Amino acid sequence: MANALRALAMDAVEKAQSGHPGMPMGMADAATALFTRFMKIDPGRPDWADRDRFILSAGHGSMLLYAINHLLGYADMGGGELKRFRQLGAVTAGHPEHGHTLGVETTTGPLGQGLTTAVGMALAERMMNARFGDELVDHYTYVIAGDGCLMEGISHEAIDLAGHLKLARLIVLWDDNGISIDGSTALSTSTDQPARFRAAGWNVIAVDGLAYHAVVDAIAEARRSDRPTLIACRTTIGYGAPTKAGRESAHGAPLGAAEIEGAREKLGWTHPPFEVPDELRAAWAEVAARGRAAREAWEARLSTSGRRADFEAAVEGDLPADFDEKLDAYKRMLGEEAPKVATRKASEMVLGVVNEASELTVGGSADLTHSNLTLTRGLGSVVPGAYGGRYLHYGIREHAMAAVMNGLALHRGFIPYGGTFLVFSDYARGAMRLSALMGQRVVYVMTHDSIGLGEDGPTHQPVEHLAMLRATPNINVFRPADAVETLEAWQLALHCEGTPSVLALSRQNLPTFRTAYSEENLTGYGAYVALKPRRRRDVTLLATGSEVEIAFKAVDLLAARGVDAAVVSMPCWELFEKQSEAYRRAVLGTAPRVAVEAAARLGWDRWIGDRGRFVGMTGFGASAPAGELYAHFNITPEAVVDATCDLLTCA
Amino acid sequence: MANALRALAMDAVEKAQSGHPGMPMGMADAATALFTRFMKIDPGRPDWADRDRFILSAGHGSMLLYAINHLLGYADMGGGELKRFRQLGAVTAGHPEHGHTLGVETTTGPLGQGLTTAVGMALAERMMNARFGDELVDHYTYVIAGDGCLMEGISHEAIDLAGHLKLARLIVLWDDNGISIDGSTALSTSTDQPARFRAAGWNVIAVDGLAYHAVVDAIAEARRSDRPTLIACRTTIGYGAPTKAGRESAHGAPLGAAEIEGAREKLGWTHPPFEVPDELRAAWAEVAARGRAAREAWEARLSTSGRRADFEAAVEGDLPADFDEKLDAYKRMLGEEAPKVATRKASEMVLGVVNEASELTVGGSADLTHSNLTLTRGLGSVVPGAYGGRYLHYGIREHAMAAVMNGLALHRGFIPYGGTFLVFSDYARGAMRLSALMGQRVVYVMTHDSIGLGEDGPTHQPVEHLAMLRATPNINVFRPADAVETLEAWQLALHCEGTPSVLALSRQNLPTFRTAYSEENLTGYGAYVALKPRRRRDVTLLATGSEVEIAFKAVDLLAARGVDAAVVSMPCWELFEKQSEAYRRAVLGTAPRVAVEAAARLGWDRWIGDRGRFVGMTGFGASAPAGELYAHFNITPEAVVDATCDLLTCA
Repeated sequence: MANALRALAMDAVEKAQSGHPGMPMGMADAATALFTRFMKIDPGRPDWADRDRFILSAGHGSMLLYAINHLLGYADMGGGELKRFRQLGAVTAGHPEHGHTLGVETTTGPLGQGLTTAVGMALAERMMNARFGDELVDHYTYVIAGDGCLMEGISHEAIDLAGHLKLARLIVLWDDNGISIDGSTALSTSTDQPARFRAAGWNVIAVDGLAYHAVVDAIAEARRSDRPTLIACRTTIGYGAPTKAGRESAHGAPLGAAEIEGAREKLGWTHPPFEVPDELRAAWAEVAARGRAAREAWEARLSTSGRRADFEAAVEGDLPADFDEKLDAYKRMLGEEAPKVATRKASEMVLGVVNEASELTVGGSADLTHSNLTLTRGLGSVVPGAYGGRYLHYGIREHAMAAVMNGLALHRGFIPYGGTFLVFSDYARGAMRLSALMGQRVVYVMTHDSIGLGEDGPTHQPVEHLAMLRATPNINVFRPADAVETLEAWQLALHCEGTPSVLALSRQNLPTFRTAYSEENLTGYGAYVALKPRRRRDVTLLATGSEVEIAFKAVDLLAARGVDAAVVSMPCWELFEKQSEAYRRAVLGTAPRVAVEAAARLGWDRWIGDRGRFVGMTGFGASAPAGELYAHFNITPEAVVDATCDLLTCA
Repeated sequence: MANALRALAMDAVEKAQSGHPGMPMGMADAATALFTRFMKIDPGRPDWADRDRFILSAGHGSMLLYAINHLLGYADMGGGELKRFRQLGAVTAGHPEHGHTLGVETTTGPLGQGLTTAVGMALAERMMNARFGDELVDHYTYVIAGDGCLMEGISHEAIDLAGHLKLARLIVLWDDNGISIDGSTALSTSTDQPARFRAAGWNVIAVDGLAYHAVVDAIAEARRSDRPTLIACRTTIGYGAPTKAGRESAHGAPLGAAEIEGAREKLGWTHPPFEVPDELRAAWAEVAARGRAAREAWEARLSTSGRRADFEAAVEGDLPADFDEKLDAYKRMLGEEAPKVATRKASEMVLGVVNEASELTVGGSADLTHSNLTLTRGLGSVVPGAYGGRYLHYGIREHAMAAVMNGLALHRGFIPYGGTFLVFSDYARGAMRLSALMGQRVVYVMTHDSIGLGEDGPTHQPVEHLAMLRATPNINVFRPADAVETLEAWQLALHCEGTPSVLALSRQNLPTFRTAYSEENLTGYGAYVALKPRRRRDVTLLATGSEVEIAFKAVDLLAARGVDAAVVSMPCWELFEKQSEAYRRAVLGTAPRVAVEAAARLGWDRWIGDRGRFVGMTGFGASAPAGELYAHFNITPEAVVDATCDLLTCA
């Protein structure tokens, strides 16, 4: 059965003349052990909620997964797709892509992401189990990780957190083949991985990864552990290839006809390319049949559990019917009370309503809880061995936080949100990009969103980060200007099931200008006229977040100089892009435009146009109280006036 | 002496009403042990090449360093500056900033960066030692790291690499105080740090960090080890504060008058705020005197070594006098031979000349050597215990690679360059930003710079990364279009001492269009007219990198339709921004403009203007052969023609 995987991997890579045969050939036995004896999946129902999760963290070995899914009979993985490996539109993409291919639990390829996302899934399993019990939630998360996954920094964050939280249902099979792309791993590492994992609180088992029964015994033992388990599988990369096995040349290129010929001989595989004999297919079909039976038994339990509606609503991620009503009522109140608070504080206030209104949300912070203001009353912390809470102390691990949130979202049952400073999106970039690529409903609460952060200085002050995030496809970047826009941003983020959101929030207090209640979510337009000109529109001031206040102040100064200005608040460029051209033109107007944002200019020319002016940052920030920094960097109402009077005649 | 540090830290934070007193108060004894007994520095000559390096990786504890530097008599750190802690323009910035304050070896604050940059410095010390011997290069690198540093993923990459390379002169004092911002570290970690470091090949010593003599003994022992050493210093955060010591409330906020009063009492510190008695000042001055003597002895050795000129040229980072001549000769040859090669290949060819012409360059790759093409003949690998080589196998550790390169550059003696795929700049962002903020000459060789990467698919295909890097202050982002521009980009990057560079290079082959030799470095203009229109300029096609070829092909198609087009190659936006407005206007022209780049649009509106069109990516890529992807995403000469004919009348 393992040789069938090897043969299919060799054949597909050879046909594509592109890909990675080495890992599938090395890990074929271990994968066969896992799937034939343990994996609980029903290929006919890839989204069955209580299935085991299998994560190919070493995503370059995608043919291992595709070969398995082919033999298991996933509907989209016919033999033709194996022959179209890495071709345009094929489900057999170069690296496994969630949403593109059935049975791919998460997109992998960037190393270490799969492992860390799996931590999120294993955590989600325990958290769902705490809510719905053993009858409905009782599955494992299995990972195949390579040397690369374990060298990446994110792996430290992942195993540290998993060990701490005692995620005993997480079982990682490490493809310990001693080879990386540059050559022997001895070129660059001397780490004793088992000792490292033990130091992080893991159970560790070492086996011959080419020995089916040894791997079976190891997995059985791992399932009995009260801690997550690393199974160190000693393997040979490209096992079977006569001259390339055990060498880096087997890693990432087709083996070539002669080498494949030799491998077939060595493995005793006599079948033509892409052909697998019926008796082997039948053996793999048994795995699927076992899974189908388990799924049917589970469905029977669900039907009689009395929790069906709740369970399905959680898995669907449905917000309660009265959710928007509650939020709208709070929006009305915010408008009436017009609090002068930082948008991070407004976010906390809104989260109080959100977390009360829905039980799906799971909060957290990378050790900045009291700065990000992500913890609301009554959430309760998730702690080792007790997973009923709704708040995660991610530790100083921004990257793992993002990847774990991806895992929570992918597992289904939760809407994760997590906080750090906007500047530290740098640390989380790898996983944030995957939130976007996979289209997951993950909410990033990024506070301290400009030089308004103040004294901590340039290392902590984002400048380029709004542009970075806006440039990334499929992320909604919200930079609300007041408490009402903050509420609207949360409302949109929580409703947006196919797109992650970033909320860029201020440290400093801001007045509420949206005092008149609007039933419509104006932030949903991306940009809108926040202040109409008194008579005619001489100039349009564009601003986001904390700089909307500056634009408002500039309006008064300009009025004194005979200039009539409109203010356009632009909390979400991505949503504004989606409006009709007519709407956009009406909002932007035909008058000259001046934009103000305490960030890099890149991207703003699209909105200010050829004649426009930009008031913002041109370099890194500095360490000083926030107000002084705004003056120092000349991001002030006076600077907006000067820029305007550059464009037109002021009195 | 330690209490003087505690008092100054308390007082400065209190006066600023902002900052972090907890760490300085906890680590004051350990720091005193290090400085009084071991540190070899001459405050009068902060740039002495053979000084010990001290890195405050836990950068929020900046007052510890400022208090020490004040007492050691650094010229810029008078008492007035302590009173202006965290104020605009003060050298006492919120976090230590290299280049802003004397005696700050690297900018810290983003956690884990200092530790990893220190690995680069300790490596540089050994590499310089291999070149110049024990007489001239014989120093240690000391780090104070906090729990946060050790939780960040980058710390894994750092300790793994340092342990592997046996960097015995790296000594890390871990402030093991059991407290992070959210509260006890037990909220989020259970890792056995000593076991973890031992697994990575480190020597580990555990001591009472509040016991001066114990720390002295530990450092002495560490200096005798043949491996890097972690000294786990058990401390109490905010030691001395009567109610806040040992609690998170001591971490990042002023203690308050009452608490300070209590601390003074408990510590027996009777002096007014900011005052330190003369006898203590005298004791600290002895440290400085010892350092001055050591420096003078070293200078005597340098004078008689016969290596003075070489050594100083290396430390200054001077390229040889004939460097440009050799590069220019090669440029002439490239123009004549007009190779059709990928720009990553052109980069390798140019590096062959560069690495031959200067010994300052140190190459490397995050395990993609044969993809990034960063290794040229004869460089030789740096391996554990033998540091004479010039090539580093960074392993699958993009983030550490970037931070270690920062350390190599900051230490001086080397010009580091390192490779990975452009998309994995995501993993290195934290350290790349610090390259820019510190203005270090670090060259990032980022290959596979678009969907042209092909089959590996969207996880490996950058889309937003050019925009991200262009938005970042003080980075030159080069995207050369052919072999000649690649050479010019390297030439600029190596000459640019205050700015890091990114070279975004193609996987796919590209023709050389710069066949006519130009003495001037045209890439140095940032953008220039690569193809003049035949008669009049009907349209200007703007392009970078691999898309310049597409623009050239579009010119022919447009000519057939009666449209006369100019092509502007824009290899470096940042340098183009620096040209005169007249130059920029002349290059961009007054005709309508169409830009083509296989990347996100963000930022292009600045160049195409209100009437312009953009041909590029609107979402993530896909897995398929490169040529098919360009067609699929409609980034083709025909698409450029269509966009042009949208703007003006085509036949």
